[in-house]
Amino acid sequence: MPVSLTYNTSVKVYDTDFQQVAHYASYYRFYTDAITYFSRQVFGDSLETLAFRGTWFVVVESGSKYHRPLRLGDEISVNVSAELLSDRAIRYSFKILKEGQLTTEGYLTMVCIDPSTWRATAIPQVMVERFKEAERP
Amino acid sequence: MPVSLTYNTSVKVYDTDFQQVAHYASYYRFYTDAITYFSRQVFGDSLETLAFRGTWFVVVESGSKYHRPLRLGDEISVNVSAELLSDRAIRYSFKILKEGQLTTEGYLTMVCIDPSTWRATAIPQVMVERFKEAERP
Amino acid sequence: MPVSLTYNTSVKVYDTDFQQVAHYASYYRFYTDAITYFSRQVFGDSLETLAFRGTWFVVVESGSKYHRPLRLGDEISVNVSAELLSDRAIRYSFKILKEGQLTTEGYLTMVCIDPSTWRATAIPQVMVERFKEAERP
Amino acid sequence: MPVSLTYNTSVKVYDTDFQQVAHYASYYRFYTDAITYFSRQVFGDSLETLAFRGTWFVVVESGSKYHRPLRLGDEISVNVSAELLSDRAIRYSFKILKEGQLTTEGYLTMVCIDPSTWRATAIPQVMVERFKEAERP
Repeated sequence: MPVSLTYNTSVKVYDTDFQQVAHYASYYRFYTDAITYFSRQVFGDSLETLAFRGTWFVVVESGSKYHRPLRLGDEISVNVSAELLSDRAIRYSFKILKEGQLTTEGYLTMVCIDPSTWRATAIPQVMVERFKEAERP
Repeated sequence: MPVSLTYNTSVKVYDTDFQQVAHYASYYRFYTDAITYFSRQVFGDSLETLAFRGTWFVVVESGSKYHRPLRLGDEISVNVSAELLSDRAIRYSFKILKEGQLTTEGYLTMVCIDPSTWRATAIPQVMVERFKEAERP
Repeated sequence: MPVSLTYNTSVKVYDTDFQQVAHYASYYRFYTDAITYFSRQVFGDSLETLAFRGTWFVVVESGSKYHRPLRLGDEISVNVSAELLSDRAIRYSFKILKEGQLTTEGYLTMVCIDPSTWRATAIPQVMVERFKEAERP
Repeated sequence: MPVSLTYNTSVKVYDTDFQQVAHYASYYRFYTDAITYFSRQVFGDSLETLAFRGTWFVVVESGSKYHRPLRLGDEISVNVSAELLSDRAIRYSFKILKEGQLTTEGYLTMVCIDPSTWRATAIPQVMVERFKEAERP
């Protein structure tokens, strides 16, 4: 069962381009911010702290569908929904809403690696347990 | 039939993150640069010039699969392959190679719009013709 | 008299580079975020809303001194202090603190322009008044 | 005596913001690209290769003055001029020209550090020698 949360943010000047809407690659920053928030809420630990303890997550897949443009200053809700694909991979799915209307969908698949070998490794047991607790209704 | 070109670039400091590899979202900058190059070569016109003449392309879909990491200073070849999906949409597919080895695959779908209405419109005929010329073997 | 506020944020993955510290240009994103926050608090209006009403601020000068590096996940306080240089220019000065210690200093000078002519123009009176109210001890 | 070179580039979509000109922080990417080019030409070695050999340069100061805006697709010349401030620091000064006209000035001061201690250290002798060769008229 996926675990879902909502992260709120807004479209900044540096997110926009000459078309006066958010640049397509800026959305990946929204997704990264939502995962940072998710990690603190669900894993009880920041991705940053995890990084320093030797658990790195690397992105192996990313994607986005842009249904409606976002403009400077738009207040947006990034709904992030995570599921464990295996003992070493997490899939994050995103829906961005503006005034309740779906504007963008995206995903990121991340694999846990050991930075000393750069090989896939099992997600730490404590993270898995916290994830399973959050899954409970 | 798709039209293909290769754009060469390298991984810069600002493309990297604390994992000491190219950040997953930096690849979209490589793709954008490859399209800029493609546009000048095939359409005989820069996307920029087109933009000022009132033809805007907006990204409606983006995605990447990261097979192998890229590091600071890596010399890479971005193979870009384009096809007309309809009279108003272009799909660009990318393969990034390093020393001949595939490291990353990606795509961008762009739709031609009229900036005054922000609605999809036909790709200018001159662009379609140049594309068809480039398709010929 | 300058008007000062503090904006809190943290160093994200995309702020870092291969040196495993915040990339020098990422600090300008911290400054932009601090100004966005300042604008809402002091001008009672977002820069974004102002932009749509036809008041644009363009950056004419920027600078930073980096005393100590920032790392992934660092919680930072961006102290922003603004002063009116003239009827058309604002100077924002920044001090970034981490655990109470000064790590970075910076500044941005912005000039109010009329987007239709791209010429400097007076800052709207309502903004000046709100600024002067905020100046009062 | 400073050593000078010119690096040519153009303003990309991701460099622009909603004001339809290059975003002020994008210029630091132009400067970084110019230094990458300078390093290969003058030091006969990329900053990247140097990085992997254990010589890191960290930015301790950055700044820009924006005299005229740059727009999407503008072809620009980044004149970079470097001087050794001491045995451990280099100052890069930049002038950006468009059609022969000065649009922007900037600088970056970089200090050579030992990444294992994060302390300032002497610039490798081979780099200093190549710099001095380039200084000769």
